[in-house]
Amino acid sequence: MTLDPRFTQTPAPPYYAVIFSALRTAVSDGYVEAGERMFARASQLPGFLGAQALSSPDGFEMSVLYFTDAASIRAWKEDAEHLAVQERARREWYAHYQIRVARVERAYSGPEEGLHPYD
Amino acid sequence: MTLDPRFTQTPAPPYYAVIFSALRTAVSDGYVEAGERMFARASQLPGFLGAQALSSPDGFEMSVLYFTDAASIRAWKEDAEHLAVQERARREWYAHYQIRVARVERAYSGPEEGLHPYD
Repeated sequence: MTLDPRFTQTPAPPYYAVIFSALRTAVSDGYVEAGERMFARASQLPGFLGAQALSSPDGFEMSVLYFTDAASIRAWKEDAEHLAVQERARREWYAHYQIRVARVERAYSGPEEGLHPYD
Repeated sequence: MTLDPRFTQTPAPPYYAVIFSALRTAVSDGYVEAGERMFARASQLPGFLGAQALSSPDGFEMSVLYFTDAASIRAWKEDAEHLAVQERARREWYAHYQIRVARVERAYSGPEEGLHPYD
């Protein structure tokens, strides 16, 4: 089976995940373009492993970005262009957001591998 | 501001997240009912903190479940009714899924608290 590209292929744990949830404002000017530019920029970082994202029609978003380590997340946070986008996102695009930085300890997939969830 | 209920209110880290991604099959019989029953059942576990989920019209899903600790995740994995649903999910509902168990080390929200992402 070819893996749907919306799944992220990651190495064996440990690695890191940034879990992002957000509720959009009504302001959409520049938002899609910034998102695409930021994804392209993150993809160039050595420690970036991939990202998954979904959103609802009324503007609730979830995304998970995967990085090899905590230092790569910090480098991404401090990226100059990303800093400017974060500032604009807080001011214009997001009514509320939550960010969680987590260390992935175990990972499984299925059903074809016959692995059991949470084993 | 009242927090949109799709956000999960969690305690200060550390706590745990189960990051679930899945691509559905065309089989939908029993799926929604099982999901609702499982959410209700997980909610009764002492270590369950909440869950967030989104899906696309063509059946790609992402959800993140939050638990106080790894032992609570194991208890949820071993719940008898949940085991039966996992088995059916592998057989009928999911073409592919990924599960990652992660320890949340840092968490932030905004923009109203003025916190900086990844600080």
